[in-house]
Parts: sequence; C-alpha cells; structure tokens
Amino acid sequence: MHFTSETTADGVTEHCFTLDGVPGVLWLPATAQAGSPAAAPADAAPTRRPLVLLGHGGGSHKLAPGLVARAGRCATRYGFAVAALDAPGHGERPRTAQDERFATEIGELLATGRPISARVARHTAALAEQAVPEWQAVIDALRKLDGVGPDGPVGYWGLSLGSVIGVPLAGADPRITVAVFGLAGDDSLTEAARRVTVPVEFLLQWDDELVPRRAALALFDAFASAEKTLHANPGGHLDVPDFEVTDSELFLARHLR
Amino acid sequence: MHFTSETTADGVTEHCFTLDGVPGVLWLPATAQAGSPAAAPADAAPTRRPLVLLGHGGGSHKLAPGLVARAGRCATRYGFAVAALDAPGHGERPRTAQDERFATEIGELLATGRPISARVARHTAALAEQAVPEWQAVIDALRKLDGVGPDGPVGYWGLSLGSVIGVPLAGADPRITVAVFGLAGDDSLTEAARRVTVPVEFLLQWDDELVPRRAALALFDAFASAEKTLHANPGGHLDVPDFEVTDSELFLARHLR
Repeated sequence: MHFTSETTADGVTEHCFTLDGVPGVLWLPATAQAGSPAAAPADAAPTRRPLVLLGHGGGSHKLAPGLVARAGRCATRYGFAVAALDAPGHGERPRTAQDERFATEIGELLATGRPISARVARHTAALAEQAVPEWQAVIDALRKLDGVGPDGPVGYWGLSLGSVIGVPLAGADPRITVAVFGLAGDDSLTEAARRVTVPVEFLLQWDDELVPRRAALALFDAFASAEKTLHANPGGHLDVPDFEVTDSELFLARHLR
Repeated sequence: MHFTSETTADGVTEHCFTLDGVPGVLWLPATAQAGSPAAAPADAAPTRRPLVLLGHGGGSHKLAPGLVARAGRCATRYGFAVAALDAPGHGERPRTAQDERFATEIGELLATGRPISARVARHTAALAEQAVPEWQAVIDALRKLDGVGPDGPVGYWGLSLGSVIGVPLAGADPRITVAVFGLAGDDSLTEAARRVTVPVEFLLQWDDELVPRRAALALFDAFASAEKTLHANPGGHLDVPDFEVTDSELFLARHLR
C-alpha cells in the first residue's frame, strides 16, 4: 500500500493510496494517525476501529461528493475509518476495450429506446469479478495500519454498481459484519445474495428506471440474513431521499459500534 | 363526549370516555388538562396540540399494552394528545351475530388449513365502514377540548385491522396529515388508498402468514402520497421488529411537529 497524499480538513484526514495499481482513499478522524505497524510502541494495545467500505455507483468514482460527505460523517460522528476504491474502468483507472464497447452499446440502446438492464447487469458482473479480490486485498492492507487495527468490524455501503460488487464481496468475506445495499437486482446476483448472512439494509426506489422492481424485491428476498430490512420510496434510480441515506448510516453505526 | 375515568401515572393522564356508545381513551401529558371549552378564559389562545389516533389490530382493544406504551411515548416524548377507540365488535363493545359468525367461520377455516385472508378482508371491510364515521365524530369532539385545541395536525397509526380502518379514514378526512399503516393489503382497500395523499410509512412483514406479500406491495403502490416509505422485515404478522415501531413513531413525530 503506497500513500500518495494526505490532506486534513473539517476534522477528517484523507489519505490517498494505491495498492497493486488500484487507486483508493482512506479517511480517518483527524485525531487518528494512519501510521504503520513499525510506528507503534511494542506494548501499545492495538486499535480496534470499525472500518466502513464505500462502493460508488456506475460512472462515478472514489472521490464523488456524495461519498466524500458520507465518509466525513462516518469519521467525525462515529469515529470510523472509511475507505473507497475506484472500481475497474472508473475514476483514475484506465478504460478497457470492453468498457468502451459497453459505453457505445449503452448509448445505442438508449438512443433507440431499448432496455439496458440486461446489458448493464452483464458488464457490471464482470467488473465485480475483478473488484471483489481488490477489496479483499485492501481490507488486508488497511487492517495492518495502526489507525485501523487488525480485528475491528467491517461495514459495507454501496448502491447500484456498489451493490453489484458489494453483494458477492459480503457473501465471500466473513470480515464484513453489516451492509447497506440497494438500487440493484438481477438473477446473476441471487447466488451471491444467498451467501450473505449479516444484517442488511436494502434501499429500493419504487419507480427505478434502471432496475425492475420485481428484480430488486427478488434480490432482497434472496439474502440469507436473519436481520434484513427493505426501505422503498417513490422516485427513480437517482432519487433516494436524503433521510434514507442518513438512516442507512445510522443502521451501519448501530451494528458497528 | 362523556368522560368516565381519569388516571395519572408516569407523566401521562388517561381519560376514558364514551361518545355515542363508542368507548375510547384520550391520553394527554399530565401537565395538560383535557378541560372543556367553558373552562378556558375567553381571551386565552387556543391550544394547538398534535393529536395521534391509534387503531388497534383485530382481536385487540383500545387499552392493549402495546397501544398504552405507544400512547405514553407519544405523550411524554413529544407532548402529543393520543386517542384510541374500541373498533366495532372489539374490547368493551358488544359482538353482533355477524361477529360471532365470522369467529366461527375463521375457526373452521383454520382447523381445516384453508386460507382466511379473503374472509378476514370481507369482515374487516364491514367493520371499517362503521368505524370511519365513529373516528370522525371523535376527532370533532376531541378538538373541542382545551387540552387538544381546534386546529392542530392529526396523525394516524394503525396496522392490520388498524389499517383496514385507517386507510379509508385518511382517504376521507383531510384533518389527517400523516399516517403509519401496514400488515394489510386487499383489493377492497385500493380505491381508498388512491385517495390518500399525506405522507405514509408502511410496514410490511416479508413472511406475513395473513397478508399475501403481493397484496401488501400493491396497497403501498396505490397510495397517491408524494412521500411514502415502505419498510419490510423478515418474519410473520406479529413479528414487527421493535426498532421499526420506534422508527414509525419518529416518522409521525417528524411530520406532526
């Protein structure tokens, strides 16, 4: 893990990093130090700071305003460590020929008024296959930092593409103990959802133009979690109400503290 | 409106009453006085206290422990007036021949493992037809009391039978400005739901053995409210999680204050 910059503002320190070519960012309360294992006195008790992973939506990136604001609230209100990565083909990462082909095809489908959900599902499933081991390597590396610690609970927050990546991640990695998902639903996610057993809050937009309502309800149904809660509100894919976002952060905080 | 008893405990005064033969109860913060129009000095500014109506579930009554606890929280935490009525055929009210026939038939259906939802929907729709004007007369009478005042906002909270009565009430009475519904869904409620335009929180139990999931989702869909929010959780009809009940009270409070 290679740190490339450090900025402190409004009580939060933002550490940009790369790990094996994947650009990411770690936010910590300004009072904490990211540090390294070598920097800690041998007899100091290890930190056990909850870590929240933020997955961005399709076409967005690790430093999108919504993510930065959410990271700030999680760090300052709850004292959590927060991390985000650029998903494959997003943010600072190169676009592959496949990404370019996808963008062209989606443009054509939209221009001719044809449905895009199936094409989006196929492309994002391929991104998720690459992104899940990237997140796992980042969790490994972050837990070696003094400011995070080796064995705190890990929460995941990600809607849309953030769920397409987060659902298989949470199904595969037992370090994740709570998750907020939503704005997603496709048969390709069902098997992974059946492996998710941690508490889940799932946000659904009743008039989502990108995700069929029936598919989103089926994904919620598939989670094996004993505690799962579905919150549905009117409006399209981008209209999640502010109060739901705040509520979902409280949901994470309730389970991570 | 004839008051029959008054008890104060834990900061709440409970006034039992009857109105045209319907037994009800009014809870007020102990610092407030139910009073009468005559008791107020002519030049005193009228109270404008939010009023919460609590509708009980089928087979329950106006003083069931869950209702009393909810009333206490609404009165002491938020300073609201709270009222509950015995629904027709419930609590202190006489059971009609129709009620007895319904109870017998439901028993027979259950004993032979046949579905009861259609029979329940038919019976409760008849109860609602009687209960809606009863609630409206009670709102009239309560707003004449000094402790409530003539023009405060009115919220409705009722699940199951409480929704079968509450949905047509909220669709018919513009004094109701916010509602919590849930654990209900039947074609007979759709038309009334389309007349509901106030903010609604709707609680759905994912494994409800009495209300088909599809019917509950269709009822949520039918509300004309620009602001409506569906909260679904695993478990049966009686398994609504405590955190959802608390959250629904906050939803009412946010819209009534």
